[in-house]
Amino acid sequence: MPRILTGRNLIATEPAEPSRQRFTAPGALAEFDESSPADVDAALAAADGAFQQFRRTSAEVRATFLDRIASEIDTCDELLDAAHAETALPLARLSAERGRTAGQLRMFADLIREGSWVDARIDRAIPDRQPLPKPDVRRMLIPIGPVVVFSASNFPLAFSVAGGDTASAMAAGCPVIVKAHPAHPATSELAATAIMAAMKTVGLPRGVFSLLHSTRNEIAVALVQHPQTKAVGFTGSLRAGRALFDAAARRPEPIPVYAEMGSVNPLFVLPGALAERGDAIAEGLQHSVTLGVGQFCTNPGLTIGLGDERFDRFVRGLESLMGTVPPGTMLYPALCRSYEAGRQRLSAIPGVSHTGPASAVAESKAAPAIFVASGQTFLDRPELADEVFGPSTMVIRCASRDEMDAIARRLPGQLTATIHGSAADLKECASLVSILEEKAGRLIVNGFPTGVEVCPSMQHGGPYPATTDVRSTSVGTAAIHRFARPVAYQGFPESLLPPELEDGNPRRIWRLVDGELTREGW
Amino acid sequence: MPRILTGRNLIATEPAEPSRQRFTAPGALAEFDESSPADVDAALAAADGAFQQFRRTSAEVRATFLDRIASEIDTCDELLDAAHAETALPLARLSAERGRTAGQLRMFADLIREGSWVDARIDRAIPDRQPLPKPDVRRMLIPIGPVVVFSASNFPLAFSVAGGDTASAMAAGCPVIVKAHPAHPATSELAATAIMAAMKTVGLPRGVFSLLHSTRNEIAVALVQHPQTKAVGFTGSLRAGRALFDAAARRPEPIPVYAEMGSVNPLFVLPGALAERGDAIAEGLQHSVTLGVGQFCTNPGLTIGLGDERFDRFVRGLESLMGTVPPGTMLYPALCRSYEAGRQRLSAIPGVSHTGPASAVAESKAAPAIFVASGQTFLDRPELADEVFGPSTMVIRCASRDEMDAIARRLPGQLTATIHGSAADLKECASLVSILEEKAGRLIVNGFPTGVEVCPSMQHGGPYPATTDVRSTSVGTAAIHRFARPVAYQGFPESLLPPELEDGNPRRIWRLVDGELTREGW
Repeated sequence: MPRILTGRNLIATEPAEPSRQRFTAPGALAEFDESSPADVDAALAAADGAFQQFRRTSAEVRATFLDRIASEIDTCDELLDAAHAETALPLARLSAERGRTAGQLRMFADLIREGSWVDARIDRAIPDRQPLPKPDVRRMLIPIGPVVVFSASNFPLAFSVAGGDTASAMAAGCPVIVKAHPAHPATSELAATAIMAAMKTVGLPRGVFSLLHSTRNEIAVALVQHPQTKAVGFTGSLRAGRALFDAAARRPEPIPVYAEMGSVNPLFVLPGALAERGDAIAEGLQHSVTLGVGQFCTNPGLTIGLGDERFDRFVRGLESLMGTVPPGTMLYPALCRSYEAGRQRLSAIPGVSHTGPASAVAESKAAPAIFVASGQTFLDRPELADEVFGPSTMVIRCASRDEMDAIARRLPGQLTATIHGSAADLKECASLVSILEEKAGRLIVNGFPTGVEVCPSMQHGGPYPATTDVRSTSVGTAAIHRFARPVAYQGFPESLLPPELEDGNPRRIWRLVDGELTREGW
Repeated sequence: MPRILTGRNLIATEPAEPSRQRFTAPGALAEFDESSPADVDAALAAADGAFQQFRRTSAEVRATFLDRIASEIDTCDELLDAAHAETALPLARLSAERGRTAGQLRMFADLIREGSWVDARIDRAIPDRQPLPKPDVRRMLIPIGPVVVFSASNFPLAFSVAGGDTASAMAAGCPVIVKAHPAHPATSELAATAIMAAMKTVGLPRGVFSLLHSTRNEIAVALVQHPQTKAVGFTGSLRAGRALFDAAARRPEPIPVYAEMGSVNPLFVLPGALAERGDAIAEGLQHSVTLGVGQFCTNPGLTIGLGDERFDRFVRGLESLMGTVPPGTMLYPALCRSYEAGRQRLSAIPGVSHTGPASAVAESKAAPAIFVASGQTFLDRPELADEVFGPSTMVIRCASRDEMDAIARRLPGQLTATIHGSAADLKECASLVSILEEKAGRLIVNGFPTGVEVCPSMQHGGPYPATTDVRSTSVGTAAIHRFARPVAYQGFPESLLPPELEDGNPRRIWRLVDGELTREGW
């Protein structure tokens, strides 16, 4: 992999003309070109031009491509060094994230090699049906078209240039234009180099991939509103995600926008669990809240319990554990300022007490913090459920189980919701589970929300404002369905059908044939 | 079934307070109450209140409910009489549509009885995995919440009160509020009575169903913007569908809007097919264009061929066949006016010639019409691709195959696209198929788009402006996925899991367990 950073936009894998406007990355590894509206047009025109060829590549070609990106990334240590310099994330964490990134690419390679994800359905003709003959109809998912991916700051590898959105879109057969996060442009260029090397090896059309750098809202809007853009993936703040959603809704042709915008991930601690293992829960919670300086979408920012003596002891224990965690450097300075602003906003609310250093920020580092408020205060002040991105949690002392349920009902949409309970607690918490099913995409019992498992059953999504599309996940194999659409073929001769729908089922995928799921052909 | 029409809004199955504002149905069967914003609130509050109970009913209960609605409808001849009086559709057609409506309800009953639609996925724990234990994660689809259905005018049974949207939403476990089409309110009340009778038999909470009458846009917007509304189904015009989509996009919490807005359904006639069976194609096309006075979403409103002598003969044949079809009464007078306006608009375009009576409308009846234009005229005037709802088709004479492909590329999104070709034609039309895959939800070879088969492989949807959500279908079993969302359960004790995710697989559904599809439990 070449190691000299161009600092240029990469349009259809080629460095674009140098821009007159540039910006400097936080780690000061290089200067990077701001993209122009003309760059957006060029990237989308190239993607559109490459789409027909790319979507017709065999699953094996695309799988080889994804595997090859994974190998490039696996062996590129400069990626870790760049990410470390740009994001301040520790190398050990970045190394694990690199493993996850490569793992995701290989997971989608395996998924499309197996092939059943296309949801093939065949209803064979019955020419002599009365009163009308039944036609032969066959349906499967095909790729939706060019996808624009806005990468996240908090996962510079796994939710960035070669991250989950890119992997799932390319697996489906969609060209991808990545808008790099300006907090790690060098890491982004190195990851792009890995993708481009893999494209070359496999021989894909250049328009399949572009990387654009920008710090400007109008470029983001131009990408979302471009007529050739057919879907958008985004991970970031509610404000930015909603702005993209609104920009897409104003398009003449609406398109899906999958914005994952984080949440406070409420964690309910029931009395029996506290009695059995209060200390262990406090330890686990402290770890989950402060992991990676609290910069995870699944960070448990809201801890809810029944305000008895045991709960107060648990909170004091949590406070002293959090006090032992040193301040940590956040991904970029603005996050630290916004964390501090959030802490000050919460502390100023009457009825909210606060533990932790008076200022969260010293030398751009964020110190862990705990806020405590009563259930009634929470019910009176809905802003207590707003996310404060960083290593803090808001503890809510409820006066009763009814108040706890009332709080659960009041929650906005979440990525996750967690319950800690003893066997006896869990026997009595069906109503709480029922409320939380309406509030979150993933429910956890006796665990912690951070550490999202990448597997077919994972759901990383949830009701708004956690995401803009409650039907979708950005982690796990089901993520590929975001970038596909169904097409039915009626009365088609076999020569015009995709292999997935041929009589003989040459790909041996699972298909619903005349209502029965089978891998057989005929 | 009771036969006296109340003319009232039915909120949670109870007649609402009489309204001071009423409107009269076209067939003059009764006067109907205009609903108020308070009626909207009451219907959604009831739906929200009933949702928790309804979504926890067993699949068997919901299937019995759907079957029961089907039986009520099957045996209600007054439904046909009312629909005939209100829509002018012939009784034979309405009787077939009633069969389809009952068939759809039974199809969804069978689908949820079988149960695999929930897409259950289980990844079992690996406690000793290194470096971190793998948690137990299980995922399935659950109902999305209360659904508002706007019913269509052109299918007073199959796309109306007890039609496909209602059947699929209720099958998933979602309460439904139907906004009745004001062109057939009596039919709507009778269908509502069938649903309510079935609810009573099965013992469902009343909030599961409401029927609101309205002729006013503000009520439609209030329904779409109500905080408890979680999804919207609509079939109708582009203008109305887009207005609902825009209203939903302005909500604080965005929701899916499935608006099916019709299309011109281009039909390509290739030279070999004309040589082999030009007369038969003309006959089939005439039938498809004029069926039901052209009031189908899948009406072929655009016929495209290579402008040689044989094609001209085909067009003359089509013209004379269309001339034999008597004018027909449209669903309501405004449609007839709008058909005539569309005809005049098209005739006035330079380069467009027109066959058929000088005026389309005589005594509220619409006469078939054919327009003819060159490929170049079509390329110059994109409005030739706008839908004219009624028994007409625009014939495009192309100068070359390249021009035909250019026209295909220029098409807006469609529900269907059709190719008539001989074996030799079809061998050479891969590029046309490839273009049309990007344009339509269903591709048809050597058939006609009207007569949508209701089956698992059907796709009734397509790129905008055919629908607002290219990922969805409003016909066939996949329609249920519009009203569901995934939830993952991590580390759950079996007692808190839905039966679909229990170890033993008591429902014997297909599940993806550790990456393998199986009906076995363990």
